Amino acid sequence: MKYSSLAKTLAAFLAFDVVALAAEQPNIVFIFTDDQGWGDVAAYGHPDVRTPNLDRLAKQGTLFTQFYVGSPVCSPSRASLLTGRFCAEIGIDYAIGGPAGQKYNHALWLDPELPNVYKTFAANGYRVGHYGKWHLGAMDKDGNMVAPAPVEYGAQESATAHSTGPKLKGLNNSNKSEIIANYGIDFIERNQSSPFFLNLWIMDPHSVLDPTQEQMDPYMDHTHPAVRSHLRSSQTVYYAIIENIDRAVGRVIQKLEECGLLENTIILFSSDNGPSPLWSSATGHAGSGLTGPFRGTKASLYEGGIRVPFIVSWPGHIPAGKVQDQSVVAAVDMYPSLVQMAGLEVELPEELDGEDRTSVLLGTPSKRSKPLMWEYRFGNWGREIQVSPTLAMLDGDWKLLMNPDRSRVELYNIREDITETENRARYETEIVGEMSARLMDWWDTQVPNPKNAPPWSGHSGWRMPRGN
Amino acid sequence: MKYSSLAKTLAAFLAFDVVALAAEQPNIVFIFTDDQGWGDVAAYGHPDVRTPNLDRLAKQGTLFTQFYVGSPVCSPSRASLLTGRFCAEIGIDYAIGGPAGQKYNHALWLDPELPNVYKTFAANGYRVGHYGKWHLGAMDKDGNMVAPAPVEYGAQESATAHSTGPKLKGLNNSNKSEIIANYGIDFIERNQSSPFFLNLWIMDPHSVLDPTQEQMDPYMDHTHPAVRSHLRSSQTVYYAIIENIDRAVGRVIQKLEECGLLENTIILFSSDNGPSPLWSSATGHAGSGLTGPFRGTKASLYEGGIRVPFIVSWPGHIPAGKVQDQSVVAAVDMYPSLVQMAGLEVELPEELDGEDRTSVLLGTPSKRSKPLMWEYRFGNWGREIQVSPTLAMLDGDWKLLMNPDRSRVELYNIREDITETENRARYETEIVGEMSARLMDWWDTQVPNPKNAPPWSGHSGWRMPRGN
Repeated sequence: MKYSSLAKTLAAFLAFDVVALAAEQPNIVFIFTDDQGWGDVAAYGHPDVRTPNLDRLAKQGTLFTQFYVGSPVCSPSRASLLTGRFCAEIGIDYAIGGPAGQKYNHALWLDPELPNVYKTFAANGYRVGHYGKWHLGAMDKDGNMVAPAPVEYGAQESATAHSTGPKLKGLNNSNKSEIIANYGIDFIERNQSSPFFLNLWIMDPHSVLDPTQEQMDPYMDHTHPAVRSHLRSSQTVYYAIIENIDRAVGRVIQKLEECGLLENTIILFSSDNGPSPLWSSATGHAGSGLTGPFRGTKASLYEGGIRVPFIVSWPGHIPAGKVQDQSVVAAVDMYPSLVQMAGLEVELPEELDGEDRTSVLLGTPSKRSKPLMWEYRFGNWGREIQVSPTLAMLDGDWKLLMNPDRSRVELYNIREDITETENRARYETEIVGEMSARLMDWWDTQVPNPKNAPPWSGHSGWRMPRGN
Repeated sequence: MKYSSLAKTLAAFLAFDVVALAAEQPNIVFIFTDDQGWGDVAAYGHPDVRTPNLDRLAKQGTLFTQFYVGSPVCSPSRASLLTGRFCAEIGIDYAIGGPAGQKYNHALWLDPELPNVYKTFAANGYRVGHYGKWHLGAMDKDGNMVAPAPVEYGAQESATAHSTGPKLKGLNNSNKSEIIANYGIDFIERNQSSPFFLNLWIMDPHSVLDPTQEQMDPYMDHTHPAVRSHLRSSQTVYYAIIENIDRAVGRVIQKLEECGLLENTIILFSSDNGPSPLWSSATGHAGSGLTGPFRGTKASLYEGGIRVPFIVSWPGHIPAGKVQDQSVVAAVDMYPSLVQMAGLEVELPEELDGEDRTSVLLGTPSKRSKPLMWEYRFGNWGREIQVSPTLAMLDGDWKLLMNPDRSRVELYNIREDITETENRARYETEIVGEMSARLMDWWDTQVPNPKNAPPWSGHSGWRMPRGN
């Protein structure tokens, strides 16, 4: 055994040992925001927005630079997180509900029979709470809310919006983060004695955003004086809301601290997909989300659509102040990894696409053993060069994007080319051949109705003037 | 001589013959907007904004899909248009004036001794008028307006903003296009009998934009009802202003028609550079400009920064309803081409970078004989993947972008890859070798002070979290 391998094994052993040494089962607080871009956190490099609480979380834990969600839009990303499955495999391939849902015959809810991380924790002594967004069930054509409630998915306590089950109360377009934090704080207060798994699916910065003047005050310099009285810059609005998120995170952490639970709580922070671009119908007043250096926004399989912030803290277990930029972690990995970190003795479902990434979370870089796969074939509100092909696969440093009819085939080396602007498919035909075969095999077997896609699927919608 | 060559020669002969047949010297109306993107015209494919007058102009004339300005920012682009020179050669390399100007010791004005198209027309029987933006001269450090007035550049009549000489009167942030059109209409009225060269440098859609409610009414559906009372979407604001431009263009054309001058007037419409991105300090309320399918925005050498709308009408001479997508035309070509089309018998300056592209304007596709060159090394408000290297060269279908220190070298085939996302520099080393040598030779001899650049010049400014 070479020294480096020995060191790795030793490190992995020590890491797992730390888990084993946890005095009691850790609590878990998973904060999952809505449409917050990879770059929408100061610790990720944002030049303007202030997120002192998230930055502090990154300092007391680890910031991951390469974390992927399962879809570039809401419902499938969330379904993927809960089930540890690629969303194309579980029939949730677009935002649930809405006109497109009826047109393309989408499922109206996530199958509650599927194994998921909530049910596993609820069945193993944890108190599972879910507050905020849900979007895993919608109304039927007649406007009846027929979808199962969160409790049927394992969330013993919940308050959500636009769903069956208990509703969030008192929400408006400036206080969503605050209200959801209130529910979380109340949950912590009531469940101090039992191990708990608290999920706060914060609804910001998804539009509509309408912050108060007080919230906007720190960012008024982004609104030109000549229009300040009656027009706001998108940045003033958006950054105010990001700071609302940050304040909510800070209050939840403070509550854990007050209850003496901070040391024994795994706090995770992430977002469901990339930022909604300015040109989405509801985002025109607030589309200032940033993807950092990445191409793509919400609804794109380029990095900016699926690569999001991911910060994890667990004092004494997860390295403090570490920036992990050598290892891929994905939302599908959360189910097996949280089960492992909590020390639950359960058999995980065989079909899981996620892997136990505990060793990476605890500080030891490693490669995934399996590739990540994505399928997304519906609406895109980004502009043109953000519109990706409909299939993607990440295997090591290579990312392949393609349309099933091969009208677009793109190959990027994500480590060398983080902007996805050096498409090497023309030259690296062997890699393309191997990866595209695997991706198409997966697509063939998993997607229920591959022809169920808009005609422009995977293509820019720009009507170019044609030469004559 | 092969048939195709013969046909081309014949076509070229016929085309020039048409010019020769012009009964009298044509008038010229050049409408040049500020920060309007390639995609910000319905005829170019914009999905939402209404530009009926520009669309009609395209139907009575020719729409060019591949027209390049000399710089991705204001002053150098305008200097390049007037002089027919690449801006790096004439010492205007950034927006004139402002703090950056002092820091990097920029010229305070365009050298009035340089040959330019206004002077040539003024000296050859044309009445030259210039109304609207100027930005070819700025105040000195003490705030004194010491730059030469437009008249010293050949504009016998002018009214401009922020410059020496007669000032535009009555401007506000909702009426700029209207006011400038008023000046133009008055000029046409007064100069009907002489051949004239009217330049309307419309100041829209450069921010600050503050359209009236009436102007915004057609686009209110872009502002979500929940924020309609006090927040506007960037689209509502921006599209209203684009329609203001369109109305102004329509009124000028109508005036020409009323005066019986439409048949004998060459009308040209273009923009000085790509749209200002949302994140520019003044654009947060209105940064909805579109580049069509192109990468890059204002201040980028990618297509979106330097490729702009270009519509030319001259009834009976320029083909009506044609979309020219086979030939490159550039702003530097305007000087020699307008001189040719007007039939001026003058000797053009030897140093011109522009070429006479009359044959293309009149309908015969052709390749340029010389490459186009760009140098831009200053501020960029775009986000990350829009930030280009500082040098660019277009030779046929190949576009090379590079930093002088070769920290970035990118090669795109613009015809096959209009989004500039298939950087082929790694593989096409021979083409890169040849083009980069020419580009560096040009850069070495032309740019006065190559070290005069910000440290981040040609690089994304994103502060990536570093692994540890």
